[in-house]
Amino acid sequence: MEKIVSLCRRRGFLFQSSEIYGGLNGFWDYGPLGVELKRNVKEAWWRDMVTQHDDLDVLPGAPSTYEMCGLDCTIIMHPQVWKCSGHFDLFVDEMVDCRETKKRYRYDQVRGRWAEAKGQKLFVCTMAENEEEEIARRAQKFFKLRAKDADQIAWDGPITTLDKIGDTSQALGPDASEPGTLTEPRDFNLMFPTIIGALAGEEGRAFLRPETAQGIFVNFKNVLDSSRVRIPFGIAQVGKSFRNEITPRNFTFRSREFEQMEIEFFCHPKTSKEWYQFWRDRRFKWYIDHGLAEGRLQLRDHDPDELSHYSTGTADIEYAFPFLAEGEFGELEGIAHRGDFDLRSHMEGKLDPKSCPLEVELGEDGKPKYKGSGRDLTYRDDLTNERFTPHVIEPSAGADRATLAFICEAYTEDEAPDDKGKMQTRTVMKLHPRLAPLKAAVLPLVKKDGMPEVAKDLYRALKAKFPVFYDEKGAVGRRYRRQDEAGTPYCITIDGDTLSDKTVTLRDRDSLEQIRVKLDDVVEEIESRVG
Amino acid sequence: MEKIVSLCRRRGFLFQSSEIYGGLNGFWDYGPLGVELKRNVKEAWWRDMVTQHDDLDVLPGAPSTYEMCGLDCTIIMHPQVWKCSGHFDLFVDEMVDCRETKKRYRYDQVRGRWAEAKGQKLFVCTMAENEEEEIARRAQKFFKLRAKDADQIAWDGPITTLDKIGDTSQALGPDASEPGTLTEPRDFNLMFPTIIGALAGEEGRAFLRPETAQGIFVNFKNVLDSSRVRIPFGIAQVGKSFRNEITPRNFTFRSREFEQMEIEFFCHPKTSKEWYQFWRDRRFKWYIDHGLAEGRLQLRDHDPDELSHYSTGTADIEYAFPFLAEGEFGELEGIAHRGDFDLRSHMEGKLDPKSCPLEVELGEDGKPKYKGSGRDLTYRDDLTNERFTPHVIEPSAGADRATLAFICEAYTEDEAPDDKGKMQTRTVMKLHPRLAPLKAAVLPLVKKDGMPEVAKDLYRALKAKFPVFYDEKGAVGRRYRRQDEAGTPYCITIDGDTLSDKTVTLRDRDSLEQIRVKLDDVVEEIESRVG
Repeated sequence: MEKIVSLCRRRGFLFQSSEIYGGLNGFWDYGPLGVELKRNVKEAWWRDMVTQHDDLDVLPGAPSTYEMCGLDCTIIMHPQVWKCSGHFDLFVDEMVDCRETKKRYRYDQVRGRWAEAKGQKLFVCTMAENEEEEIARRAQKFFKLRAKDADQIAWDGPITTLDKIGDTSQALGPDASEPGTLTEPRDFNLMFPTIIGALAGEEGRAFLRPETAQGIFVNFKNVLDSSRVRIPFGIAQVGKSFRNEITPRNFTFRSREFEQMEIEFFCHPKTSKEWYQFWRDRRFKWYIDHGLAEGRLQLRDHDPDELSHYSTGTADIEYAFPFLAEGEFGELEGIAHRGDFDLRSHMEGKLDPKSCPLEVELGEDGKPKYKGSGRDLTYRDDLTNERFTPHVIEPSAGADRATLAFICEAYTEDEAPDDKGKMQTRTVMKLHPRLAPLKAAVLPLVKKDGMPEVAKDLYRALKAKFPVFYDEKGAVGRRYRRQDEAGTPYCITIDGDTLSDKTVTLRDRDSLEQIRVKLDDVVEEIESRVG
Repeated sequence: MEKIVSLCRRRGFLFQSSEIYGGLNGFWDYGPLGVELKRNVKEAWWRDMVTQHDDLDVLPGAPSTYEMCGLDCTIIMHPQVWKCSGHFDLFVDEMVDCRETKKRYRYDQVRGRWAEAKGQKLFVCTMAENEEEEIARRAQKFFKLRAKDADQIAWDGPITTLDKIGDTSQALGPDASEPGTLTEPRDFNLMFPTIIGALAGEEGRAFLRPETAQGIFVNFKNVLDSSRVRIPFGIAQVGKSFRNEITPRNFTFRSREFEQMEIEFFCHPKTSKEWYQFWRDRRFKWYIDHGLAEGRLQLRDHDPDELSHYSTGTADIEYAFPFLAEGEFGELEGIAHRGDFDLRSHMEGKLDPKSCPLEVELGEDGKPKYKGSGRDLTYRDDLTNERFTPHVIEPSAGADRATLAFICEAYTEDEAPDDKGKMQTRTVMKLHPRLAPLKAAVLPLVKKDGMPEVAKDLYRALKAKFPVFYDEKGAVGRRYRRQDEAGTPYCITIDGDTLSDKTVTLRDRDSLEQIRVKLDDVVEEIESRVG
């Protein structure tokens, strides 16, 4: 993974945000190559899901035809959106502070074990990875016992997390010297807060959206009224979201600012299970089609106890990122059957008080007092005249995570001959041609004999179609290596023969195969290969 | 303008954000047609400026060849970025509050005039448009004079703004009944604030970027180090920015959340004036090339007293939006010669204390104490070995404003024959084909005789290339009208003749001309027309 991070920085895929000011934890900038790669990922998704979707044919596995359209909503929305969606009250992590060390921890991440010695009992905590040793070491130190007297400590129960024991008063905090310095847990909302408006009276709290999905739900009626879409149909959106993560980590995998590619698919409750299955399989296939190895991907159905109360099915598409331990996977995309939960929430507020303990005040009639927008978000089928609240299937992908997975998958070290024909280790980014930032490089073998002129004409012809690079500096082997690192699938070399027989060398990045192609056919050849 | 706003809502170009919760002032969502239009605007800009830029040819008016690359930075950056850029201290509006009415006003927008009667003198203010009448009416009321005694009021000086008189104690606030209720002006920063981080100690104020430009400056060295660009070159970025505008207005023209398309172009100080001229002219031409009428565009050079102290030239590209008064123009894009101000600011902090009265503390040596990043952001030319701080030309465009201008320009009412050949008023969006959300619509004349089958095959062939619409419902005249409102440049009708002679009708949205085209040639024909 270090090699990948290093290549990303060196070749301009990714930089840490605000690096010259010491960087900002959990924020990443895309450099010249990175921005083109990520644009291609988003563009591939948008084309496949929205603009090139064929709404006249039944896709394999789909219960029927369906329509798709796009939307682009603001990041800052009315705060009521987050009240009704549940994020204001429920999108929280429980945190405990240490009064002694001033450090803060996630309540469910602090681990420890009950220890008793010299008549005193306490829960010894640690955040260290070698937790068993560390807990033993800290207990010994606290009880002032030498190593040989370590068996005077009586251990009670297994190592567990602090939130499982439900009591912080007898806990010895991870870096504290005395027990009882950890506070009771308090909720910390993961939405970034802000303030809108300069006019007195208008000033109000607002939030940066933690997901793009809610913008789609609150516009459901607008889309219905302004286009002629009929159920089943999906609304797609690509855009930035923000989560004030406690521990951003693993490169761009867990960032505080990230980009989502979300679809909310509205269908009749009767067919919603089939649609869920369709989207689950279709989205899994999309990653394979773009080059992720099937062996490093998995489609994991949530266990019943992982499911939200309103969901009858959720599956995660997961990838074996190289920064994870052997056998571990990280989420790329979640596909959730959300029932009618979201539209109902925005119509009438939460229906199930149990799901929103902090939010719902019950009225005298025993029903929740808190209400949604009061707008009618139901759907009437103009053929059957049936009125119903559509069910929603939500395929929710992370654009940065997908990009990172494509980068990790592409990173390869193999052997290739250098300019003298000697085999050397080479670093190559085997990106899918559709995703590669540059589709081809045009390289005149030498800067004379009219080669640059021919090369430049070819470069211009290719550039009208897609991003191409022109390079005439240095040995051609070194130029190949630079393109390999950038993930450019094809290098076209103009050499002595070109001038006589009007052919060029076309080098394939992955197979290293070199073939001769007619100069006049190059544009078409590359076009057909990059799709 | 009302008609345009209404069409945008009705046809799904633009909706007010969070409409079901009463809307949010200054925030707008793009609907199914709007998102495609805005995507096309951004894509046209990115292709023309970045990926299809020919770095081997000298463009007309350019002093030399130049390179271009892209970047995509985070919206939340290190707060020090805004300290060094000057935004933390200087990106402010002066506001006055009224203690009586609790209203807040921009200091430079409150207008009034000195009036004296019955031995009392005061500055009578108003925010009303008919300010002369309103000031007279309020003064009469305050002095308890009847209309016929109005001439007892002595007026002193012309109507002017409150900040020009520099005294609020004798001002009668716009809705106040007594003078002296307006506070002294105080600075209100237009950056949206937020808080990063959940870990104690790490918590800190941060801001949503008010421009994308600074992300480019702080990455200048990263781009130089990771790509092989040489000066002159430009870095382009498209992304959201946020300004807590006091008075968002005029549809999407002045929004609080908006998208920018910015280039920072780095060049040698000696040629910077020529590059400024180049970009000024090139960007102006871009809007004309995409359909804005020259008569409604102007390129306005700033007066010397409008210029920032560091700028030797700034020009605005302005458009006569229909919501403005006759003869007035609104800014689409600014092209600024920024000298070495920005790179220097991020290297060493502000150099000119006068420009940053709030920020700069002078040290004992009389030089500013406050420093930038301390990083070396100079450039060394590897051919001449000269080291210098590059000058910057900044063409800064608003994606939403450009989109709005294209919408306003496109909106047309003319006459077209209905299904019975009778002339009727029609509403048509004459969008440039490159920007139109849908490039074509395929319409089988009737739903029988095999027409839908032929139409569907054609639809699929076109759809592989670009967004196309298929419509088989209702009279063909009504279908044409719907496409006219959506701005679709071409309608292709499959009729009885198609089945016999393999030709279709191709209807041009603007000229209403209908020609017969061979079925096999349609894809190529449309492709060549939409470019």
